[in-house]
Amino acid sequence: MSVGSPHELSCPVPILDGVEVLLAHGGGGRLSHQLIERMFRPAFQNDALNQRHDGAVVGLDGHRLAFTTDSYVVHPLIFPGGDIGQLAVNGTVNDLAMCGAKPLWLSVGLILEEGLPMTTLQRIVGSMRQAAQAAGVEVVTGDTKVVDRGKGDGLFINTAGIGLVEPGVSIGPSQVQPGDGIILSGDLGRHGIAIMAVREGLAFESTIASDTAPLSPAVQALMEARCAIHCLRDLTRGGLSSALVEIAQAGGRSMAIEERLIPVDEEVRGACEVLGLDPLYVANEGRFVAFVAPQDASRAVEILRRHPVGRDAVLIGRVTDVPDAVVTMESVLGVPRLVEMLSGEQLPRIC
Amino acid sequence: MSVGSPHELSCPVPILDGVEVLLAHGGGGRLSHQLIERMFRPAFQNDALNQRHDGAVVGLDGHRLAFTTDSYVVHPLIFPGGDIGQLAVNGTVNDLAMCGAKPLWLSVGLILEEGLPMTTLQRIVGSMRQAAQAAGVEVVTGDTKVVDRGKGDGLFINTAGIGLVEPGVSIGPSQVQPGDGIILSGDLGRHGIAIMAVREGLAFESTIASDTAPLSPAVQALMEARCAIHCLRDLTRGGLSSALVEIAQAGGRSMAIEERLIPVDEEVRGACEVLGLDPLYVANEGRFVAFVAPQDASRAVEILRRHPVGRDAVLIGRVTDVPDAVVTMESVLGVPRLVEMLSGEQLPRIC
Repeated sequence: MSVGSPHELSCPVPILDGVEVLLAHGGGGRLSHQLIERMFRPAFQNDALNQRHDGAVVGLDGHRLAFTTDSYVVHPLIFPGGDIGQLAVNGTVNDLAMCGAKPLWLSVGLILEEGLPMTTLQRIVGSMRQAAQAAGVEVVTGDTKVVDRGKGDGLFINTAGIGLVEPGVSIGPSQVQPGDGIILSGDLGRHGIAIMAVREGLAFESTIASDTAPLSPAVQALMEARCAIHCLRDLTRGGLSSALVEIAQAGGRSMAIEERLIPVDEEVRGACEVLGLDPLYVANEGRFVAFVAPQDASRAVEILRRHPVGRDAVLIGRVTDVPDAVVTMESVLGVPRLVEMLSGEQLPRIC
Repeated sequence: MSVGSPHELSCPVPILDGVEVLLAHGGGGRLSHQLIERMFRPAFQNDALNQRHDGAVVGLDGHRLAFTTDSYVVHPLIFPGGDIGQLAVNGTVNDLAMCGAKPLWLSVGLILEEGLPMTTLQRIVGSMRQAAQAAGVEVVTGDTKVVDRGKGDGLFINTAGIGLVEPGVSIGPSQVQPGDGIILSGDLGRHGIAIMAVREGLAFESTIASDTAPLSPAVQALMEARCAIHCLRDLTRGGLSSALVEIAQAGGRSMAIEERLIPVDEEVRGACEVLGLDPLYVANEGRFVAFVAPQDASRAVEILRRHPVGRDAVLIGRVTDVPDAVVTMESVLGVPRLVEMLSGEQLPRIC
């Protein structure tokens, strides 16, 4: 084989329409979804991938393990309310929690750019340590690579995580049923606006801080109270809208939510107006939605409210038996509209 | 907290002497080792990390899981004998094999640079698929991020992997005993020279191809034959020398090897001479050393020789009871010399 020549693939992988990778392929919206559905899922197809969830749940001799990974490329590395290190630990802890798993172990892969100040690395490693302690997980293995100046951007972090799913727990889009309550754990948009504000040098009256936080204690509390949780999803890239549409499509269920019930901080709302953003599409790092059986929905809200991350938890709508797996939202003016997945890239490198 | 201001760490992480990250911090040699020992291990200390092995072995209700991660930043993405996709699957499969584990599941985290040709991504995903099939592992979860042009280098891949360690298997530097045979699975330097040749535009008479390959089938064969394996290590960044010195130091044992017994292909040797490299420090991606109890050493060599990756397996020396955990090599001229860890960076971004 000559170097760099195209070779024939004995297992062809479908190619997408575009000729080049765009920022939006990593944005968590429609193009990300396309890349996953048309290239990655056909290439690696297996039962775990087909769960279309935040992480895979795999069986091992009677036990069920959750396994998940995320890379973090947030810019800037340090922002109001946190840094890339915290984000990288909390994000993967949260993906495990969204599988209904108790997070146990993390791996950390660092890609450093030559010239990164050692003090920056030190601070970020310190944040990872604190975040891991707070979430009760151990960083048990790691790897460090360094790329030459101009071939990276300070620091990228990958974390992968393993958690344990307790017997009887079955959480995922396919479990969602008509009548399920849709619970939002708190207000929207803090992380995205915090990043956007620093990056664009916007001066708001007071600083909006990222909501980055481990969600596992709140989720564990729901499980211990035996609430019938059908699906969980944290609201990262693509925001609440993309999360709901993804679950609707993956589970084949429709949903109806009410805009007036969705909490958005006044400052965040103001910033969104200035920036021309819809808070429903802005990224969060410490918020999730829970789909809970009707009889347990209000109890679940009560339990969440006892936890700092769920202080503002609220029931925002219901799963319906409308066909076509659509998500509709009644606006504050009482007008229904279709909620769609984020198309294009709203805020690149938000996590 | 104001943005970007240094904050007090309640759990201080030690800082290293240098003020900036250098390429050599990712080279697998002395500076990598320093970063791990002085910053990462103190920050995240736990039993699994203290095994100082290629991956962590963690216990789960009577089972033992191996968990490992590696990021791949090789340049160029496609090289004689393989591409970054194959490398990313084989490398993590091999780290699991080196823990004595049967590799089961992989996660894949992609960091793409805006503008990467879709055809390149397609080829690399196809290679990952083939490599996963060949190694008998499933890619069960993944993540994709995109960074803006000029903030990455085409494509970086992180893979993390989970494997199962059979009962009774106990492999690691601390298990190494005086008298153990040191078996090298094949000839040295193919991967490093293949990359170097393309990158530097060197024209050798015929193309030297990377040795990238899954090592798990050969390792499984040793285990099934109940060879008393005490330690395994694949020879990636830093080459044979760094691997032996690391194990010697971690296990507190000395080793004596013979240079004349170490296979190096004639073309690779010639290229090393031209480039001023020592094959003992050049990276490999399909080679490992096994430390095997004296009574099983020659049987282990026989078993390895039945596998393509172990065709040239050979006993290159013994663990000794010399104090101070040193590695000595008798040169082809019969002169003993001390083998040291790679210091500085020989070949940046080799994997």
